[in-house]
Amino acid sequence: MGADGTPTLSIDKVAEDVIVEYITDNDIPLNILSEEAGYIDNKAEKTLVIDPIDGTYNSVMGIPFYSVSMAIGTKSMVDVEAGIVQNVITGELFYAENGKGAFRDGCRLNVRKYIQKQSTLFVYMGRHSKVDCYHVTKKANRSRSMGCASLEMCMVAKGSADGYYFNADHYDKSIRVIDIAASALILREAGGEIVDLSGNRLDMPFDLKVRSNFLAYGDEAIKGVLL
Amino acid sequence: MGADGTPTLSIDKVAEDVIVEYITDNDIPLNILSEEAGYIDNKAEKTLVIDPIDGTYNSVMGIPFYSVSMAIGTKSMVDVEAGIVQNVITGELFYAENGKGAFRDGCRLNVRKYIQKQSTLFVYMGRHSKVDCYHVTKKANRSRSMGCASLEMCMVAKGSADGYYFNADHYDKSIRVIDIAASALILREAGGEIVDLSGNRLDMPFDLKVRSNFLAYGDEAIKGVLL
Repeated sequence: MGADGTPTLSIDKVAEDVIVEYITDNDIPLNILSEEAGYIDNKAEKTLVIDPIDGTYNSVMGIPFYSVSMAIGTKSMVDVEAGIVQNVITGELFYAENGKGAFRDGCRLNVRKYIQKQSTLFVYMGRHSKVDCYHVTKKANRSRSMGCASLEMCMVAKGSADGYYFNADHYDKSIRVIDIAASALILREAGGEIVDLSGNRLDMPFDLKVRSNFLAYGDEAIKGVLL
Repeated sequence: MGADGTPTLSIDKVAEDVIVEYITDNDIPLNILSEEAGYIDNKAEKTLVIDPIDGTYNSVMGIPFYSVSMAIGTKSMVDVEAGIVQNVITGELFYAENGKGAFRDGCRLNVRKYIQKQSTLFVYMGRHSKVDCYHVTKKANRSRSMGCASLEMCMVAKGSADGYYFNADHYDKSIRVIDIAASALILREAGGEIVDLSGNRLDMPFDLKVRSNFLAYGDEAIKGVLL
């Protein structure tokens, strides 16, 4: 473990190496954007955006909730054309293609209607969560904070929860495009949306340096209550 | 779903019926204390304390983190002599006998040393969490809120996290003995402890009406930081 609790020999790196090697060995025409490797320019038109393990801490410490997330797009989150997120523990596979809906293991995903009194929210909690995160939990019936953004987004896409609110007080702790490129498409194809905290549709370039806070939801009615 | 979001035809009831039926049909000499059935007096010396599904909402809505929890004792949490908690999703089985250590699938469990900068806490978050819950998350490096107290306690017992802080603003939202009778023994046998928010060793009678807030931890040093 490093000083901040991040594993030094990262499982992310091992998982990433397998994916990068596969792309290279099979001459698959894709650039790669990933956590450890950064941007690998293969002179391709499209880019594979990878979070080889989303929920690294969970995976290393034995909290059974983490995923592999992959998306294909051109320049930014809104042009992502296909995305998959797999729960490594359960094997549940979430996927979507632009305009063709979102699915889990063959079943069509649909977000649910928001009823505040019955609502469940995922909320980012930790040393860098703003107090607004606490206020948001008070507006929900139940809150969860599971430590794996891509899977938490997929839970909203499949109607397990109403939304996911992420508000960090430090830019470096906000979300990156690799974390949510796939799950944002899955959520949008399931009927939901992801916006910044001003309420504007969220887009993020394929750039590891760019970060954002966000609200993801199934039902737009939640915006008026939480933002 | 009922008005508060609790399933009307509860999976808890189905799971409980199976356990109660097994005890009765096999003339096992145990009283039973459980969520739906309440206290079943079989004129036995000892009582089986059951949470047939801990994490009901997770189980019903497809959030893959919930358990079955069972403990055997006489009158209250501190005299529990055996406890098991099983993660229904992964099959992971946590168990302990008084004085004989705690185990997960045959491997001895040990809590971990607390280093605040690297610490991970489970924290109760929701409509009824006190603002102290938010303040506690700010003192940890990472926080999680998974919606299944027994499993969250077992995660502390196995060293996945440093503690679990539960502070609800409403008595009816605090924890009951059925939720943690088994996992408290598992945690204690792994070297940890569970205390009330005054720092006193927590005991709870086998009584569904009694509730409590608590701090569970692996390393006693955490008390000085959080309480």
